[in-house]
Amino acid sequence: MWAVVALVAASTAAWAGESGSHSDPVGPVLLEIVLLLGAAKLGGAVFLRLGQPAVLGELVAGVVLGNMVLLTGDSALLTQLSRDVTTPGTPMDILARLGVVLLLFTVGLESDLGAMLKVGVASFLVASIGVVCPFVLGWGVSVWLLPGQPDPLTHIFIGATLCATSVGITARVFQELGRLDQDESRIVLGAAVIDDVMGLVVLAVVSAMITAKDTGQALAVGSVLGLVLLAVGFLVVSVLGGRWLAPRAYGLASRLQGDGLLLITSLAICFLLSAAAGAVGLAPIVGAFAAGLLLDELHYREMNDRQGTDHKLEELLAPLTALLVPLFFVQMGMTVHLSTFGEAGVLGFAALLTVAAILGKQSCGLVVGKGLDRLSIGVGMIPRGEVGLIFAAIGRQLRLNGEPVINDVANSAVVIMVIVTTMVTPPVLAWTLRRGDRRRGVPSAA
Amino acid sequence: MWAVVALVAASTAAWAGESGSHSDPVGPVLLEIVLLLGAAKLGGAVFLRLGQPAVLGELVAGVVLGNMVLLTGDSALLTQLSRDVTTPGTPMDILARLGVVLLLFTVGLESDLGAMLKVGVASFLVASIGVVCPFVLGWGVSVWLLPGQPDPLTHIFIGATLCATSVGITARVFQELGRLDQDESRIVLGAAVIDDVMGLVVLAVVSAMITAKDTGQALAVGSVLGLVLLAVGFLVVSVLGGRWLAPRAYGLASRLQGDGLLLITSLAICFLLSAAAGAVGLAPIVGAFAAGLLLDELHYREMNDRQGTDHKLEELLAPLTALLVPLFFVQMGMTVHLSTFGEAGVLGFAALLTVAAILGKQSCGLVVGKGLDRLSIGVGMIPRGEVGLIFAAIGRQLRLNGEPVINDVANSAVVIMVIVTTMVTPPVLAWTLRRGDRRRGVPSAA
Repeated sequence: MWAVVALVAASTAAWAGESGSHSDPVGPVLLEIVLLLGAAKLGGAVFLRLGQPAVLGELVAGVVLGNMVLLTGDSALLTQLSRDVTTPGTPMDILARLGVVLLLFTVGLESDLGAMLKVGVASFLVASIGVVCPFVLGWGVSVWLLPGQPDPLTHIFIGATLCATSVGITARVFQELGRLDQDESRIVLGAAVIDDVMGLVVLAVVSAMITAKDTGQALAVGSVLGLVLLAVGFLVVSVLGGRWLAPRAYGLASRLQGDGLLLITSLAICFLLSAAAGAVGLAPIVGAFAAGLLLDELHYREMNDRQGTDHKLEELLAPLTALLVPLFFVQMGMTVHLSTFGEAGVLGFAALLTVAAILGKQSCGLVVGKGLDRLSIGVGMIPRGEVGLIFAAIGRQLRLNGEPVINDVANSAVVIMVIVTTMVTPPVLAWTLRRGDRRRGVPSAA
Repeated sequence: MWAVVALVAASTAAWAGESGSHSDPVGPVLLEIVLLLGAAKLGGAVFLRLGQPAVLGELVAGVVLGNMVLLTGDSALLTQLSRDVTTPGTPMDILARLGVVLLLFTVGLESDLGAMLKVGVASFLVASIGVVCPFVLGWGVSVWLLPGQPDPLTHIFIGATLCATSVGITARVFQELGRLDQDESRIVLGAAVIDDVMGLVVLAVVSAMITAKDTGQALAVGSVLGLVLLAVGFLVVSVLGGRWLAPRAYGLASRLQGDGLLLITSLAICFLLSAAAGAVGLAPIVGAFAAGLLLDELHYREMNDRQGTDHKLEELLAPLTALLVPLFFVQMGMTVHLSTFGEAGVLGFAALLTVAAILGKQSCGLVVGKGLDRLSIGVGMIPRGEVGLIFAAIGRQLRLNGEPVINDVANSAVVIMVIVTTMVTPPVLAWTLRRGDRRRGVPSAA
């Protein structure tokens, strides 16, 4: 494997040397894909051997790749790699984002809408308490510890960054350990979707409050309400409308001649809902998950019959996710800047913020019925992932009295909180799920 | 299908309206993928119904998408779409390039190195004359007819675009007509393979000449010779070295735990060879084709045995090519600017270039033994397909005195030539093959 890494480095060097030439722009991307996939598979294999989920190995591989500069010193190649992979909108970044969209699509396909609606009340309660508790705790920690921040709205904003749940990591762990048909998994996934809507609302309200205060204008209650209605409306319309539309889309496509129509039609439905979710301010993965939920084998059975094929959508998606999903988790690891941990005055605040983030979500376990694995539900809600980072990024752009609402110290603390909550979840969740098995007397599946 | 297009347009509009917001950058890419795939599948289905290859429909769909502005007038959305899809290095462009890399990889996998070597001499003669004659004819047509192009290297480059034979289209036509076990078919496929290499060597030499002239440096014969040696050497080393390395790479990977390792290892070999081909000045697709040629089911059988799986690499690649390959052909169609057809001399130039392309390849029938169906061999070599389009794309990126070597007029003419040579082949080849059957007294198979 190191031979591969060396070969990649050498070839990339050959590339960089050929500056300003007309070489095909796909070359560096091909090398970066090989490098990231190699690191992901190596890291995944190591952590699988240690009894941990592969996703943790992919994250750690990303942290190593993203912080190699600490070992090697400044290097044009490493800087280029970091920029290509972690800058929003680059081809590598888009490939990673396609990966997480497809991941949530497959998780949605594996989930059963009816079964999820059955635990809908539990999901709603889990999402609600999982927004309120971390929000209050984070607010309190900020009031107590954040130095030199006079405006109370800053503390409220920091509390808001703790609300989110990043469903990507949890979904992947549930999928890897084969738990998508467990009630705990359904409750957490449902709660994560509801949480995304709630987080959006909290973000919109707090941002509107800050903007109103900064500009001295009254709070635009109407526009905030409109945003909330748009997000909720999207979810309802997409699932209901999608269930009506999907069989018709397959029926239409099955009249066409051509290859790959089942895959293409399904991807089109997934991508359209993801893009629509993004357009109303939700995360695209929420749309992808909704698309997976509403699609059903019944919808495309007629297509298979008509074309004389026997394709399973899950099998057609497997090569796509094998290629793209690891790119997302390595990318996520690469956004971790270990140097952040060394900044003065940050670690104490970050540590307490992280504790607030973790403890706050443990409240989620308390609102579900007694027969359920409450600890796993609380742990499943822990990771903040990219959603927490997006909140922080918005806070850095918002200004109050000429100062960014999220200053450098607060930003570093939020980033550390996101790193720890994200990295801690896979191993702890694997442990709590197996513990739940033992308690119920089920032989461990893994 | 129009409902999909309308929905895409509406969602994109919603996007564009949300200017300066913090929306996820994957959204527009998702919509563009849906739009291009929808157009590709619709176009492919129409042309399949007309008895033509699906790839033609994809090209035509691209032409329609790229020229909608002629119907709708100036539109910010269409301009954005064109720019996102056809600008080198954008995420959509990289996806399309990944598509053609994977296409040539699968074509290489379908080709049998041993069977081709048996008719190697005939194939080599057919390839050689099939490069020289169209090259000279195309050069002559360009000198005679291309307006406003003073530099002789431009004419040489246009001659070079006629050298190629599309392996994919040729193989697919023989396969559709059930003739893959005929000597004519093997000779044409082998010649198409050698032709690809020769054409790309010609491209490398002509590109080097243009770059040398543009930078004002003298073209040392030694450096061109070095380039040719590097290209040929790369192919020899990659096939020989790859055949030695591939089973070892699979053996190493099969010791790792994890999912998708067969696909990932194969893609890594393909991508590394593609990137290496690019690094030595060849097109990445040459490396991808070499990777496909050198990989063999034997190499990964042990991996399947060890992991208890029964995967076929071709089946794992099918969903990837179903998603990405149409993006390449639609993108290529989108580079056709119909507005340039109104310019003086374009249609006449395109017509004569097409005649040169067709007549030039008829020389191929003259160099094979008497017992063979010479006309079918000549006709089988006609389609230029994606290779001619890639030549044109490279020509558009090469600059001479600040102007692209292949300007809009020349590009449109080359694309028309590619469309006509590709469209004309299936019906004509079907006719010549049946004519050959009748002459030999064989009852027609089709």
